[in-house]
Amino acid sequence: MSIRPSKRAPDAMRPVSIERAVARYAEGSCLVKFGETHVLCCASLEDKAPGWLRGQGRGWVTAEYAMLPRATHERTRREVTSGKPSGRTQEIQRLIGRSLRAVVDLKMLGERQITVDCDVLQADGGTRTASITGAWVALHDCLAWMKARDMLKGPALKDHVAAVSCGIFRGQPVLDLDYAEDSEAETDANFVLTGSGGIVEIQGTAEGAPFSEAELIELLGLAKSGCAKLVELQKLATA
Amino acid sequence: MSIRPSKRAPDAMRPVSIERAVARYAEGSCLVKFGETHVLCCASLEDKAPGWLRGQGRGWVTAEYAMLPRATHERTRREVTSGKPSGRTQEIQRLIGRSLRAVVDLKMLGERQITVDCDVLQADGGTRTASITGAWVALHDCLAWMKARDMLKGPALKDHVAAVSCGIFRGQPVLDLDYAEDSEAETDANFVLTGSGGIVEIQGTAEGAPFSEAELIELLGLAKSGCAKLVELQKLATA
Amino acid sequence: MSIRPSKRAPDAMRPVSIERAVARYAEGSCLVKFGETHVLCCASLEDKAPGWLRGQGRGWVTAEYAMLPRATHERTRREVTSGKPSGRTQEIQRLIGRSLRAVVDLKMLGERQITVDCDVLQADGGTRTASITGAWVALHDCLAWMKARDMLKGPALKDHVAAVSCGIFRGQPVLDLDYAEDSEAETDANFVLTGSGGIVEIQGTAEGAPFSEAELIELLGLAKSGCAKLVELQKLATA
Amino acid sequence: MSIRPSKRAPDAMRPVSIERAVARYAEGSCLVKFGETHVLCCASLEDKAPGWLRGQGRGWVTAEYAMLPRATHERTRREVTSGKPSGRTQEIQRLIGRSLRAVVDLKMLGERQITVDCDVLQADGGTRTASITGAWVALHDCLAWMKARDMLKGPALKDHVAAVSCGIFRGQPVLDLDYAEDSEAETDANFVLTGSGGIVEIQGTAEGAPFSEAELIELLGLAKSGCAKLVELQKLATA
Amino acid sequence: MSIRPSKRAPDAMRPVSIERAVARYAEGSCLVKFGETHVLCCASLEDKAPGWLRGQGRGWVTAEYAMLPRATHERTRREVTSGKPSGRTQEIQRLIGRSLRAVVDLKMLGERQITVDCDVLQADGGTRTASITGAWVALHDCLAWMKARDMLKGPALKDHVAAVSCGIFRGQPVLDLDYAEDSEAETDANFVLTGSGGIVEIQGTAEGAPFSEAELIELLGLAKSGCAKLVELQKLATA
Amino acid sequence: MSIRPSKRAPDAMRPVSIERAVARYAEGSCLVKFGETHVLCCASLEDKAPGWLRGQGRGWVTAEYAMLPRATHERTRREVTSGKPSGRTQEIQRLIGRSLRAVVDLKMLGERQITVDCDVLQADGGTRTASITGAWVALHDCLAWMKARDMLKGPALKDHVAAVSCGIFRGQPVLDLDYAEDSEAETDANFVLTGSGGIVEIQGTAEGAPFSEAELIELLGLAKSGCAKLVELQKLATA
Repeated sequence: MSIRPSKRAPDAMRPVSIERAVARYAEGSCLVKFGETHVLCCASLEDKAPGWLRGQGRGWVTAEYAMLPRATHERTRREVTSGKPSGRTQEIQRLIGRSLRAVVDLKMLGERQITVDCDVLQADGGTRTASITGAWVALHDCLAWMKARDMLKGPALKDHVAAVSCGIFRGQPVLDLDYAEDSEAETDANFVLTGSGGIVEIQGTAEGAPFSEAELIELLGLAKSGCAKLVELQKLATA
Repeated sequence: MSIRPSKRAPDAMRPVSIERAVARYAEGSCLVKFGETHVLCCASLEDKAPGWLRGQGRGWVTAEYAMLPRATHERTRREVTSGKPSGRTQEIQRLIGRSLRAVVDLKMLGERQITVDCDVLQADGGTRTASITGAWVALHDCLAWMKARDMLKGPALKDHVAAVSCGIFRGQPVLDLDYAEDSEAETDANFVLTGSGGIVEIQGTAEGAPFSEAELIELLGLAKSGCAKLVELQKLATA
Repeated sequence: MSIRPSKRAPDAMRPVSIERAVARYAEGSCLVKFGETHVLCCASLEDKAPGWLRGQGRGWVTAEYAMLPRATHERTRREVTSGKPSGRTQEIQRLIGRSLRAVVDLKMLGERQITVDCDVLQADGGTRTASITGAWVALHDCLAWMKARDMLKGPALKDHVAAVSCGIFRGQPVLDLDYAEDSEAETDANFVLTGSGGIVEIQGTAEGAPFSEAELIELLGLAKSGCAKLVELQKLATA
Repeated sequence: MSIRPSKRAPDAMRPVSIERAVARYAEGSCLVKFGETHVLCCASLEDKAPGWLRGQGRGWVTAEYAMLPRATHERTRREVTSGKPSGRTQEIQRLIGRSLRAVVDLKMLGERQITVDCDVLQADGGTRTASITGAWVALHDCLAWMKARDMLKGPALKDHVAAVSCGIFRGQPVLDLDYAEDSEAETDANFVLTGSGGIVEIQGTAEGAPFSEAELIELLGLAKSGCAKLVELQKLATA
Repeated sequence: MSIRPSKRAPDAMRPVSIERAVARYAEGSCLVKFGETHVLCCASLEDKAPGWLRGQGRGWVTAEYAMLPRATHERTRREVTSGKPSGRTQEIQRLIGRSLRAVVDLKMLGERQITVDCDVLQADGGTRTASITGAWVALHDCLAWMKARDMLKGPALKDHVAAVSCGIFRGQPVLDLDYAEDSEAETDANFVLTGSGGIVEIQGTAEGAPFSEAELIELLGLAKSGCAKLVELQKLATA
Repeated sequence: MSIRPSKRAPDAMRPVSIERAVARYAEGSCLVKFGETHVLCCASLEDKAPGWLRGQGRGWVTAEYAMLPRATHERTRREVTSGKPSGRTQEIQRLIGRSLRAVVDLKMLGERQITVDCDVLQADGGTRTASITGAWVALHDCLAWMKARDMLKGPALKDHVAAVSCGIFRGQPVLDLDYAEDSEAETDANFVLTGSGGIVEIQGTAEGAPFSEAELIELLGLAKSGCAKLVELQKLATA
C-alpha cells in the first residue's frame, strides 16, 4: 500500500505523454503531459545570434517559461502586471536553457538563435521537469526543420536530455512529485540527465530537516530510472 | 468564385468550435476556435470585490488577454519583457470586460470578482472576437458553478454576448476576417452583439479610404447574421 | 425645453474655438476649445522616420495625448508616477494618430515624422474629439511650414478630419456630450469623419442597455452635422 | 550697450506677468510668465495628509513639475515614456516644495495636503524660478479658498517667497537668465528669497571656471532686487 | 605540483577570515573573506513579520544580495539602472535565505523579520558561498542581540550552516573555486551543509560534459571537509 | 563648552582619513572616512565615451552614488526594489559628477569615460561631501594609471576639489555636520571648493527660518577652512 496521495508506488512516474507538432507556426513544438501537468513547448528559430555572440560563427539556444494565470489551483497574477518575471520564473528558464545547451553543439547552428517557449497550461507539480523533457522534443524538431533546409553545418544534437523531480515524502524517497507531494515533501530535488546517463544538473533542497548522502544517492537512483523512461518516450515521439 | 484567400463566401464564417471545461481548476473554461484562431478562456472567481467597489454590495467582471509568444507566424516578444502590456493588449482586454459586463447583473454577484483570462494559443485573425465569444461561455459556467453553491442573489446572466469582425476586402464586405484578409482589408470593424440583437460595441476603422454609411449598414448586417450563429453555438455548447 | 444639463438643444454643439500658432517653437499649433474642454495641440517635425519605416521613402504621423493633473474636477495622478501611460491614454493617442494618417499621403513627407502632442489643459468631456479636431489644424500648419521650405514631394493633406461624440442621454440622442452628460449617458459614441463626409472611425459603446441599428443611424446623423460645422471652423481658422 | 543677447541691462528682468484663476477646477491657480517662459501653476487640496504624517495634526505642501513636450525649441520625449521622472525634474520639484513650505505654517492646515502642479507650457530659461514665483500665488489662493470655508486653524501663510536666477555671462553678473544666456553662462545660480529678504535656498554652480566670494555677493545683490520686484507683482496679483 | 592557477592543493580552501561587528548600526554583522572575495554581511531586525505571515505568531528570515559595481574585474552596471535585480541576483538571495531558514526555529522569533544583507565588496569567485557562511555569523549575532533583550521565546538557532563550491577543473575535483577556476571548470557545484554534516542544498551544473555519480560523490566529500573547516571558523569568530 | 552633540568646536571637523588603493580591480580607489561616515570610492575607466559625445575627441567623467541598506541607523530599502534611484540619489550623483568635471580637462582623456562609484558603507551625515572628497582621490589615481600607460594627451587634472557641509545649529554656525546635527539644523549648506579656493558649487537650504547674507558669509568662511584641510589630506594621501 502506497503512502503517496496518488497511490503510486514510490518509483512510479505519472502517466507521461508527448504530442508533437501541436503549434501551427512554430518550427518545432510539443504538448507534454506529466499527469495533470501540461506544458506547451514551442521552438522558434531566429536568423541571427544574440548581440553578445555576433561574429563568432556560433549560435545560441535559450528558453522562456511562464504559467497561464489559471494553470494553478488558485488564479495567479500575470507577471506582466508586476512588470517583471519573478525570481522563480527566471530560475526555471535559466535551468531549461542550460539543460538544452548541454546537448547541443552550438557551432553547428551558425549565427542563429533558437528560443524554446515553455508555457504551462496546467500545473500539478513538476512543471520545470516536464518543460525540459518537452523542450528537448521541440528543439529536436526545430533542428530537423533546419536540417531539411540545409541550415546546419553538421550534427547539432549530441544526446537526449530529460528531467524529473524526486523527493523524500513522509520519510520515503519517491519519484516524480505531484503538487500534493511537492508542497509537503521534506526534501525536493530536480535532476536533469542525458540519454547516456550523465548528470547535467542537480538541484536539491531540504525543505525541512537536512538530508544525508545516502538519501541523495537513493534519489539519484530513482531519477536515473525515471529519466531513462522519459528518454524512451522522447524516442517514440520523434521516431 | 470567392475573392477571399480562404475561398469562403463573403458571408461565411470560418468553422467555429467551442469545447467546454478544458481547464481542470477554473470555475468555468472553454477552448474556442474560429478556424486557426484558438483561444483558451478561463473564468476565475475571487471572493472579494476590487478595492474601489467595496462596501457597495455589488460584484465585478473583468478580463485579461494575452498571446503566447509563438501563437503568431513570427515569434512575438513576451510583454513581461518590456515590463507592461502593450496598448493593443489593454484595448482588447478592456473591450472584453465591457462586453461581458453588458450582459451581467453585477448586483447578483455579491462582493465578488470574476476574472476571465483569454490566452491566445494560436492566432489567425479575430482573436478579440473569438475571445469575447468564448469568454461568455467561461463566464456562463462560472455563474452556474456559483449558483450550484447558492452564491448568487438571483439571476445574474441577462443575455448572450458574441462578437465577430467584418471588413471591406478588395471592395467586398466580408464576414469574419482571417489574418490574410485582416492585414489587407480597407476597412475593419468589430461588432459585439447580444443574443437579442442589441449592439453592445462597434469599433470600425478605415485602414485605407473612409467608408460610407451604406457600407457601415452592410457590415452591420453581416455581423448580425454572424453573431446569431455564434449565439447558437454557445447555446449548443452550454446545453 | 431641453433635457440636457447645459440647456443645449439635442443637436447643438458647445461653443467651439480654434486659436492657431499659440506655441512659440512648434512647427504647427493650436488651442482648441469645445466649451470648457481646452486642448493644446502642437505638431513637431523630426527629420527622420521611425526605425521600422526606414529606407522606404515614406514618413509617419503619430500622436501623443495627456492630461494635466488638474485638468479635471479632482486632481489626477500624473501617469509618470505609475511608470506608464494608462490603457485609456494609449487608446486615445492611437485613435488620434490613425485619424490623422487617414487624411495624409505619407509618401509626400519623405523619411520624416510628425508628432502631434495633444495636452488637455482643462477637461469637461470630449477631450479625444477636441484633440482630433485641433490636431488636424496643428498638422495643417506643420505641413504648410514644410511646404514653405520645399520639404514636401507633393500635396500631403488629402482632406479635413474632425471628430465629435454623440450619445443617448435620458433616452434622447444628443450631440457633443459634456462631462455631466458623458458620465450618465446610456450610450456613448465617438465619430471621426472627413471633410467629404466619409467615416474614418466609429467607436460606440453601450454603457447601459444595448442600442439598436436605428439609434446608431440617428447618432451618425448628429455626428455628420457636428463634424461639418467643425470642418467649417477648421477652414476659418486656417484661411 | 548691453552684452546680453536680449539687449537687457545686467540688472533687468524680463517682463513678468501673473494671471490668477486661470484653471476652472483648481482651488488656486495662475499663469506666470517670465518673458517667453510660461508656467501654469495649479494648487489642489486633498483632504488627508500623506501616510507618513498621519495622526500628527499637521498638513503638508508639495509640488510637482513637468514640461510639455514642445515647450522647448526641440521636442522633448515625455518622461512617462521612460517610466520615471528625470533627475532634473525631481530636483526641481523638490526645490519648489521646500520653497513653499518655508513660508507656510503646516500646523494651521490640519491633516490636509496641498499639491502645487507647475506645468511648463513654454520654456525659455528660468522655468524653476518662474514656477516658484507662480506657485506661491496658487498656494495663496488655495489658502484663501480654505479660509473662506473655515478650514484653517489660524494664519497659515507666513511670508511671500519668490525666486530668480542670476549668472555670470561673458564676465558680467546678470539677472534673470533666458535660455540663450543660460546655455552659455560661466556660472548659474538660483536664489529663493522671502518677502522680508531672507534666504530660503541658494544653488550656485560653476559651469566653467570656479567663482569667487565677491562674485557670489554680487549675484546675491542682483537676486535681492529681482525678488523684491517679483514680490511686488505677487502683491499686485493677489490684491 | 598543483594544476590549480592558485597553486593550491585540490582539497585546499583559500585563506578564510571572519571579522565580526564591523557595521556600527546593524544588530549583527561580519566581513567575511574567502581569499580575494570579500562580503559584508549585516543582519537587520524589523519588529514585524512580512504581511503574508501576520497573525501566525512566527517570524521570518530573509536575505538580499548585491555586488558593488567595481567588485568585479570589469565594472558591472548597477542593477537599479535596469530597474530590477537580475535573475542571478534573485537566485542567490533566495538560496541564502533558504540556507539560513534551515537552521532557525522561526517560531522562537515572534512576529519579527530578520533581513541579512550580503553586499559583495570584492569578487573573486564563490560570492554566494562566502555570503552564506558570513550571513550565519551576522544572524547569530542578531539573535544574541535579541536574546540579551529577552526578545526570543526560546533557542532559535538550531545548527551552524556554511557553504562552499567545488568543481571539476581540468579533470580534477577541486575545493573552493576562485574566479579563474570557476570560469573554466567543466562542472561547478555549490554545497550548503549544516554543522552536523546534513545537506541543506546542492546545486550542481555541468558547464561542459555531463558528470557522473562517482564525480558527484567525490565533490560532496570535498565539500564536507571544506564546510567542516568553515564551521570551525564560525565557532572561533563567535566564541 | 560646545553646544554640539559631538563636543566639537564650531569650526572643528570630524577626524578625516583617506586610505588609497583599497579595491583590487579598480583603476583608482579610496576609503574615505569623515568620522563615522565611511564611503568607498572606486574609479573605473571605460575605453569609450558615452554615446552623445562620440566623435568629438573628448572624454567624460561621471559618478554614481548609493548607500548600503544598513549604512543607516534603520535599514533602508534597496533602490533596486523600487526600480529606480530616488530623487535624492540622483541629486547627489549629479553633484559629484559636476564637482569632478570642474577640475578635469576632458579633452585630455581622449574618447574615454571615467565613472567614480561612491558607495556609502556607513552613514553619519555628510555622505555627499565625503564622497566628493574621496572621489577626487580615486579619480587622481585613475588618471595616474592612465598616464603611466600613455593614455592621456596632456595634464588632465587642473586642481583639487573637496567638499564640506556647514550649518546653523542652535543658532551657531558650525562646520561638518554629523547626523545628529544635520537632522536638527536650521540651515544646511554644502560647499564644493577647489584647492585654489574657488567656489564650484553652493547648495544652501533653510530648513527652518530663512538665513541672512551675513550668515551665508560666515558659513562660507567655515567651509573655506574645512576644504583647505581636506585638500591637505588629499595631498598627503596621494603624495
